[in-house]
Amino acid sequence: MTSLKNDIFIKALLKQPVDKTPVWMMRQAGRYLPEYKAIRAKAASFMSLCTNPELACEVTLQPLERFDFDAAILFSDILTIPDAMGLGLYFVEGEGPKFKNPIKTESDVKKLAIPDPTVELSYVMDAVSLIRKNLQGRVPLIGFSGSPWTLATYMVEGGSSKRFQKVKGLMYQQPRVMHQMLDKLAQSVAAYLNAQIEAGAQAVMVFDTWGGMLSTEDYNEFSLNYAKQVRSLLKTNIDGEEVPTVFFTKGGGLWLEDMADAGYSALGLDWQTDIAKARQRVGSKVALQGNMDPISLYAEPERIRQQVKTILQKYGKGTGHVFNLGHGILPDVNPDHVKTMVDAVHEFSPQYHL
Amino acid sequence: MTSLKNDIFIKALLKQPVDKTPVWMMRQAGRYLPEYKAIRAKAASFMSLCTNPELACEVTLQPLERFDFDAAILFSDILTIPDAMGLGLYFVEGEGPKFKNPIKTESDVKKLAIPDPTVELSYVMDAVSLIRKNLQGRVPLIGFSGSPWTLATYMVEGGSSKRFQKVKGLMYQQPRVMHQMLDKLAQSVAAYLNAQIEAGAQAVMVFDTWGGMLSTEDYNEFSLNYAKQVRSLLKTNIDGEEVPTVFFTKGGGLWLEDMADAGYSALGLDWQTDIAKARQRVGSKVALQGNMDPISLYAEPERIRQQVKTILQKYGKGTGHVFNLGHGILPDVNPDHVKTMVDAVHEFSPQYHL
Repeated sequence: MTSLKNDIFIKALLKQPVDKTPVWMMRQAGRYLPEYKAIRAKAASFMSLCTNPELACEVTLQPLERFDFDAAILFSDILTIPDAMGLGLYFVEGEGPKFKNPIKTESDVKKLAIPDPTVELSYVMDAVSLIRKNLQGRVPLIGFSGSPWTLATYMVEGGSSKRFQKVKGLMYQQPRVMHQMLDKLAQSVAAYLNAQIEAGAQAVMVFDTWGGMLSTEDYNEFSLNYAKQVRSLLKTNIDGEEVPTVFFTKGGGLWLEDMADAGYSALGLDWQTDIAKARQRVGSKVALQGNMDPISLYAEPERIRQQVKTILQKYGKGTGHVFNLGHGILPDVNPDHVKTMVDAVHEFSPQYHL
Repeated sequence: MTSLKNDIFIKALLKQPVDKTPVWMMRQAGRYLPEYKAIRAKAASFMSLCTNPELACEVTLQPLERFDFDAAILFSDILTIPDAMGLGLYFVEGEGPKFKNPIKTESDVKKLAIPDPTVELSYVMDAVSLIRKNLQGRVPLIGFSGSPWTLATYMVEGGSSKRFQKVKGLMYQQPRVMHQMLDKLAQSVAAYLNAQIEAGAQAVMVFDTWGGMLSTEDYNEFSLNYAKQVRSLLKTNIDGEEVPTVFFTKGGGLWLEDMADAGYSALGLDWQTDIAKARQRVGSKVALQGNMDPISLYAEPERIRQQVKTILQKYGKGTGHVFNLGHGILPDVNPDHVKTMVDAVHEFSPQYHL
């Protein structure tokens, strides 16, 4: 394997010294880029991009041509595991992901098999290998998965949801069935991420997009517990290199202390959470990734630069910060504004690493 | 005015001793009740219920016939103020509220006039007076309004929103215009609530449904600041009686310390926030209202009773707790489950008030 030419992303996650703050962006390969839209327009569907390793590789690398990002992230979807379990993932324009065969009964849960990632999800591993090869050590490659709880929400709701009545109904009415499902999902997520690490992912991130819809107790019991189980099953050393891990619960700002004990190298922060207070609360246990409001990229460049300054200043001196948005970039953002943000992070951050 | 036969709701908000924990429920008059649906079916629209004082009174009182609630809440909508400002509120089944004339430009903001609540919103004051009279002192009547920030979100988005791109875009691009709008809204909300108090409301609540979509700094600048302005303009003593005030930011659990300094008697808590930790954080500054997950009402009665016990135990001994859901009840909840919850609060709470 080629050694990394730019490893500040890995180092910041492991809280090792860096000379500036690394930056990448959730959904950095995506619809705000005209070159992405050109490829997407030629593809039959969103999933046909994900399942074609050459196309997945191409779109993964696109943002690195425009912006000085310090990491690449696998172009894929968070719902590949339930798709591999036979639920039939598809996308409806403007409505998000859907499943043809959602989970309705205990019997549906019993039938769920843990996918072999090198078989049912081999297209993902092929993409990871190809991207890693094509990166030529320029920046590290991030692999990822949805969290067990977040996968379960889509699997029971059959798609996106506003209030999560079906999945929370199941959780309150048949908690034992919910736990069976989450246990299978935790094993599946761990196997999937381990396979991505084997294939070349140099860091992995678990996206708990919907953990924030739970009460504090339910979050611990149904989301965080299974994120911990995933972490305990991960092989985070390969070829003598440590593979850092990031856990992100959108809406999880109340629970950072508990999340910091889950064993991950870093926590992702949504934009609602104050990063200065977050750092005080987690102490030296974990690094932090985030957390500019994605919508603040609509602002004029000078305000974006000011916002970057504010977040860097709030995190303060020393390593352990990876700059990012607090959620994915929105499709109608001007790509020039992304450049403003990325360059501002590199311009203003060295003073915090002296 | 008739004196109150049951004043534990008022007393708990003012942190005066009570013999049991009071309970009411957000959206307690509404679609989960067959008797509400019967009246709604005969009305031309949702707003025709709100604007007819006799019908608004009838549906306000309906839940009190079934359940042992310790407060009634005016049946109305949070968007009556922008409607009175000429934005043209209407409802599309399954899509929520919409405005015919949303706010788009600085010139739209300049044209906004502060409504005279006894003129443009006289239908609300008539409903308040009539409900107060018909309650005959049985339980107190709660008046309410949307918060300035929450009203602004609907006024700029033109309806509900998922990501609030328009209103946050305006906030980031033209903060000065946003402040002009919020200042007018704060004055309007205060005048509206004062008129409700004059008409007979014995407590008032400000619903900041969408403050939780903001970053910590933006929440302080664009939401909490204006909730404070509203509070400073409220006349909370009438006929020698104190009128308690409640402020609720859904998704505001991170900011309770700041919210507790806004001058309100009590804070509403969403279901994500742990009420034991919330009480530690706010100390003796404010009472707390909440916070069972609305979806836990789907559970079997025994689990509902257990959940009530848990929340009462978490709040612990002493006054200052009003039991409620963490958000509005959902339309498909079995009314018998509501009875289970209400009766459990009264059954299990006296031990915390010895």
